[in-house]
Amino acid sequence: MSKRSKVSRRQILAGAASIVGSSVVSAQEPAPADPTKVQGRLASEVGERSRFESPQRIPYRSTRTSSHTPLQDLDGIITPADLHFERHHGGVPDIDPANYSLMIHGMVDRPTVFTLDELKRFPARSMIRFLECSGNGGRSYVGEGVRRDMSPQLSDGLTSTSEWIGVPLKTLFEEVGASSKATWFLAESMDAAVMTRSVPAAKAFDDAMIAYGQNGEALRPEQGYPARLFLPGFEGSSNVKWIRRIELSDRPFMSREETSKYTDPLPDGTARAFSFVMDAKSIITYPAYPVKLKESGWWTIKGIAWTGRGKIVRVDVSTDGGKSWHKAELDEPVLPKCHTRFRLPWKWDGNESVLMSRATDETGYTQPTLAELRKVRGAGTRYHYNHIRAWTVQQDGTVLFGENA
Amino acid sequence: MSKRSKVSRRQILAGAASIVGSSVVSAQEPAPADPTKVQGRLASEVGERSRFESPQRIPYRSTRTSSHTPLQDLDGIITPADLHFERHHGGVPDIDPANYSLMIHGMVDRPTVFTLDELKRFPARSMIRFLECSGNGGRSYVGEGVRRDMSPQLSDGLTSTSEWIGVPLKTLFEEVGASSKATWFLAESMDAAVMTRSVPAAKAFDDAMIAYGQNGEALRPEQGYPARLFLPGFEGSSNVKWIRRIELSDRPFMSREETSKYTDPLPDGTARAFSFVMDAKSIITYPAYPVKLKESGWWTIKGIAWTGRGKIVRVDVSTDGGKSWHKAELDEPVLPKCHTRFRLPWKWDGNESVLMSRATDETGYTQPTLAELRKVRGAGTRYHYNHIRAWTVQQDGTVLFGENA
Repeated sequence: MSKRSKVSRRQILAGAASIVGSSVVSAQEPAPADPTKVQGRLASEVGERSRFESPQRIPYRSTRTSSHTPLQDLDGIITPADLHFERHHGGVPDIDPANYSLMIHGMVDRPTVFTLDELKRFPARSMIRFLECSGNGGRSYVGEGVRRDMSPQLSDGLTSTSEWIGVPLKTLFEEVGASSKATWFLAESMDAAVMTRSVPAAKAFDDAMIAYGQNGEALRPEQGYPARLFLPGFEGSSNVKWIRRIELSDRPFMSREETSKYTDPLPDGTARAFSFVMDAKSIITYPAYPVKLKESGWWTIKGIAWTGRGKIVRVDVSTDGGKSWHKAELDEPVLPKCHTRFRLPWKWDGNESVLMSRATDETGYTQPTLAELRKVRGAGTRYHYNHIRAWTVQQDGTVLFGENA
Repeated sequence: MSKRSKVSRRQILAGAASIVGSSVVSAQEPAPADPTKVQGRLASEVGERSRFESPQRIPYRSTRTSSHTPLQDLDGIITPADLHFERHHGGVPDIDPANYSLMIHGMVDRPTVFTLDELKRFPARSMIRFLECSGNGGRSYVGEGVRRDMSPQLSDGLTSTSEWIGVPLKTLFEEVGASSKATWFLAESMDAAVMTRSVPAAKAFDDAMIAYGQNGEALRPEQGYPARLFLPGFEGSSNVKWIRRIELSDRPFMSREETSKYTDPLPDGTARAFSFVMDAKSIITYPAYPVKLKESGWWTIKGIAWTGRGKIVRVDVSTDGGKSWHKAELDEPVLPKCHTRFRLPWKWDGNESVLMSRATDETGYTQPTLAELRKVRGAGTRYHYNHIRAWTVQQDGTVLFGENA
């Protein structure tokens, strides 16, 4: 984090901006040796990152249908909105909020079209919650294989945490007079994929919301601007972005994204559909590839844990490949369905060590090993790989993904 | 929020960036009438706001020694890092983290200089806490007078909330062997003002930290990059940014910023120095100037409350200028020394109404009226104006700052 990083396009643009502003500092120029002798730049309308920091998402290959959050560059639980992971099926649509509306119809007494202003007029709430793609971390275990040179970002960067702000879906369902016989609803996006997912109506009466805010401000475009469905703890794809239509029904709609995709083939030939809830998971974000520990001695192992079923109650860390476990400290606040930051001081003796983390949630469920997971789920799915991750610290301090094979 | 806003310099630059990226959309071009017929833009390394949103800080006049957070554009409790308020006394220094160090000396056994990497190696913690300038909201009550056309941003935008990440100062004090006779410490900045403040050593053993992270990522330059002192609940100026030196002593240092400035003259001719803790305060952020309610009926009054003494336990809202009060709902999480979001549905009858909010914290302290505050503090100070704010909703729906005089 403290090393000078390469100059990015963003920094060059920031440099261009500073010409218009109050100071002219090219990204290449060294910082003053004694900053106390130099008048600093004056206040600005919108801040920029330090020119020595450039955290970036990594888009998935040339298709760029997703991008991964740089977990190894972050600490705490909040993900900056411009680094929140992306996943879209038809690109990020360009939507004028003045033309946005949400229709709710089907098994309701009063089919209604809400403008954005109308949605914002209802009593709102805010909540800090994680969002994770159900495919997060799965690629390595189906087809592509585990690479040792993966960072936390590449292995599991399809999870992020934001403060989400919006109107509870329950409020809107009451407004339109949802039938008590409606057990499912369809959520439809206004993107080029017209993404559609079926969701149990019970979730609407639990904690679902139509979110229009993220980390204090308006949603980012790639997060569904101007409004999205947000289903705390449910797999990312069901949290339909750019939502334009909700249809209530007494059965699921069996859309492409819940039949052809986002289902889990099981060993017995059937498939687990509508998995929805993301089970407890954790990953160590430091030390992790590409970090190289420069010496033996005290280091702090840190990472994030989360569960779609409530609060994380405990994270255990092993430094000997799972033979013994030590309880990590959890930073406050520990919130339901939210990333939880854990830390454990560790005295590295300089020998090869395999680091693992294991999360337990308030239901008593503990993150399984890969073998345990496969026993239940088989090897055919590419989703919901929440098993224990490992990092190997080699004798030279290099840290590699995966167990020492 | 949903109206198309003026094109800013930032948006033009974003437009320039998009030429390099995957799509070319000029800021002036209308959004597609049917976004489902247009392939959206692909994933990006760093996100940008929607071109229809441009929240901005407002720098203070031409001196630009501070800038105010756009409270009326935000919801929830997290302030995006690039919109966090600024206050500096010599501008924002340009610091290369590779050249950064923090010296701790004075009444200690082992005077020590820590590099940034060394600071990051200690066990860290994260916490979501507000930070407020002690002068926030004071200007209007000394000299400049109350203007009716002030937004929440202009009246009280020198407060923000972030997740702060760093090493507890207690850990560093133990590392250097702080003398038990040391009751104060000096915190010194490496900015052009060499900002210095004295802080009671007890705060170091309570919850002070040397913060290097903000909302998940590295501190922003205007927040003290690469490291600052963070004193939860204490007035902003004592949270020394760009911190380079801490000196432990058995008395305060009586620096310029705690003698000539940041003291509160009292009616009896003495001055209250070292006020430090920010008392409970709240402000309604909606409806507020420049909003104009378009019709009578149901609206949601919302705002933020905070206290330097722990948790907010209650916020009451009045719509009749303080004659009657109604308990507002508080969004979870309610955290100590942190903005807390409150909301109250309100049916406006179309008559002139004076809206007020009143926060109570866990010590039992309730936000005072201006008259109550002046009775204790006199009228001579420009700091710590935490009295009840009011907004007048006029019959035409226009909302103005201040009471109906």
